[in-house]
Amino acid sequence: MTKNHVTPWEVEGDVNYQKLIKEFGVSELKSLPEIFNKEILFRRNIVFAHRDFQKILEAIKNKKKFVMMTGLMPTGKFHLGHAVIAKQFIIYQELGAKIYIAVADIEAYTTRGQSLEESRKIAIEEYITNYIALGLKPENVEIYFQSERSNKPDKANAYYRLQNLLSKHVTFNEFKAVYGDVTPGKMLASLLQASDMLHPQLPEFEKPCPVVVPVGIDQDPHLRLARDISKRFKTIKFDQLCSTYNMFLPGLKGGKMSASDPNSFIALTDDKKTVKDKINKYAFSGGQDTLEEHKKKGGNPDIDVSFQYLRMMLEEDDNKLEQIRSDYKSGELTTGELKKYTIGKLNTFLEKHQLARDKAKNKIDRFVNRK
Amino acid sequence: MTKNHVTPWEVEGDVNYQKLIKEFGVSELKSLPEIFNKEILFRRNIVFAHRDFQKILEAIKNKKKFVMMTGLMPTGKFHLGHAVIAKQFIIYQELGAKIYIAVADIEAYTTRGQSLEESRKIAIEEYITNYIALGLKPENVEIYFQSERSNKPDKANAYYRLQNLLSKHVTFNEFKAVYGDVTPGKMLASLLQASDMLHPQLPEFEKPCPVVVPVGIDQDPHLRLARDISKRFKTIKFDQLCSTYNMFLPGLKGGKMSASDPNSFIALTDDKKTVKDKINKYAFSGGQDTLEEHKKKGGNPDIDVSFQYLRMMLEEDDNKLEQIRSDYKSGELTTGELKKYTIGKLNTFLEKHQLARDKAKNKIDRFVNRK
Repeated sequence: MTKNHVTPWEVEGDVNYQKLIKEFGVSELKSLPEIFNKEILFRRNIVFAHRDFQKILEAIKNKKKFVMMTGLMPTGKFHLGHAVIAKQFIIYQELGAKIYIAVADIEAYTTRGQSLEESRKIAIEEYITNYIALGLKPENVEIYFQSERSNKPDKANAYYRLQNLLSKHVTFNEFKAVYGDVTPGKMLASLLQASDMLHPQLPEFEKPCPVVVPVGIDQDPHLRLARDISKRFKTIKFDQLCSTYNMFLPGLKGGKMSASDPNSFIALTDDKKTVKDKINKYAFSGGQDTLEEHKKKGGNPDIDVSFQYLRMMLEEDDNKLEQIRSDYKSGELTTGELKKYTIGKLNTFLEKHQLARDKAKNKIDRFVNRK
Repeated sequence: MTKNHVTPWEVEGDVNYQKLIKEFGVSELKSLPEIFNKEILFRRNIVFAHRDFQKILEAIKNKKKFVMMTGLMPTGKFHLGHAVIAKQFIIYQELGAKIYIAVADIEAYTTRGQSLEESRKIAIEEYITNYIALGLKPENVEIYFQSERSNKPDKANAYYRLQNLLSKHVTFNEFKAVYGDVTPGKMLASLLQASDMLHPQLPEFEKPCPVVVPVGIDQDPHLRLARDISKRFKTIKFDQLCSTYNMFLPGLKGGKMSASDPNSFIALTDDKKTVKDKINKYAFSGGQDTLEEHKKKGGNPDIDVSFQYLRMMLEEDDNKLEQIRSDYKSGELTTGELKKYTIGKLNTFLEKHQLARDKAKNKIDRFVNRK
């Protein structure tokens, strides 16, 4: 297992994204139309690779229908890492996409034994509330639970029918290649996920059209599997799935944010003191061991977690960001100062976000049916 | 592999039913309430074994709700062997059961590659038309396609949700024990079949109540698997599935009726000449090689296919049947005479049935939605 081993189940070590582009056979995402550049995730190439994304660009250019599809695993806290995907689909909504969001409550049950009730609670209180606070609008959105696809019978039947029919067009070895050890529960969840990605194109939904699935690069094997299966399915000629791949927002200590370790992430519900403590205590630093040495040799922003949070999420001003980068590199900016700046940026963002969250709670009914 | 090897995929050789009762761990079906005896399948112990059938008897006695659940594989011609199951569920309907009939069009797709359209056509023209002609009433019946469970959204979601949730409670090795070689398509079909058997007890349907699944003994592994899974599912406390097991109606040449060999069965749409030719030419005889020898040694009704058809389906008169049995045994009745009598009985039955079929065609809409 190399240091860059990336599977849907684990992400280890520092990630060499150029190497991944080659290994996974995805394409580098180069110049995008100006309209994408307002979102720093695109402007700064945090979203760095794709498959078939030109179809989406054409749909936007020609004002044709297209879909943005994503799924959420309703476990743990909603943290900054989750916001990376959410910020993308909010942009797609502004660009005219129909938004499909699947709550993977079936997968949470079959692979983690979490009850559907618990999944519903977490999906609403953590994920959907934060999506709304981040700017998701109720128009042109379908948020659904895998366990209850639709209150329209044609749609409900069609979604699960597709899951079942797809099973004919895949082999065990393909599942094994993606998942390693395969249980019946994982297999059903995987086929339901393929239906999540493909069903927007069914006659009962949007009919064949471009569908983009924005994911972290570790999720590409799922995309590849769904793309392979869709090609073999002859009853409906699916438009091949498009995807984009974003870099990981690093966990505080480096590596990935882990739901089971609250000190690995900033939750969007963390209070000011918690944020300050977490950054000061845990945020991995690219600085030198002593202040004297730092002033002399300078720091490394590329591996500094605070700087990466600024780059990937918090610092909208490109000039300011470059200033910080060069000041940190030269040693003029200390780790303490960088952390302080990041804490300030984070807490400003979270204060505004948490007010938006309070308002969002009253809007839930416009996105999902309450039970 | 012994001569009595019975799996869901094959039935070979003469079947020793007493041995099967022991091997499969099912219970012998002994004295039944008088009300069952009007149907010769029960009166003559063609339905010979069961699991937990006492629950059904109690429900009937106490006029409590119960369900009869069965499935049909929509391939080939509807023949006399299929009528053995159909005659049972018509009795259950008279006894007050709610009738659930699943058209296994998903299974036909995933395991045989048959299109849903073809399955719908065969299910209606062959199976459902014959069920109606045999006496199925539209009241208290749900006939549904696996690919399209319901036009009520709650029901549709609940049925497929159960299929998905059940996948957590089964292992690959259990599938292998039932199916030998397991493909993803077979696995999905098997879990959908388990949902077919268990979903009538969901809150969206009848709620927990006794459910009887009448099957040929070769289908018991499916029942065992569904019973095992249901015990592990804690969200809903299912009433354990009940089942009955019938003997096979032998194929014309002995062995099992085979859809791929029209000379192995009598179809319920066969005309008089075809019936006469098939019985005369193919029906395996328990008689002696020459008339002289037959008159001297007598025949063996137990292995004579014509006699078995009389016993299992065609000769309602018990005294007459015993007369035929003893006359054939003694050699007084020749094979030619026995076949002639059977042909007469068959053609009388089929003439009446085919008239009923013509009328049934106009009633289809009361049982299934036309597309």
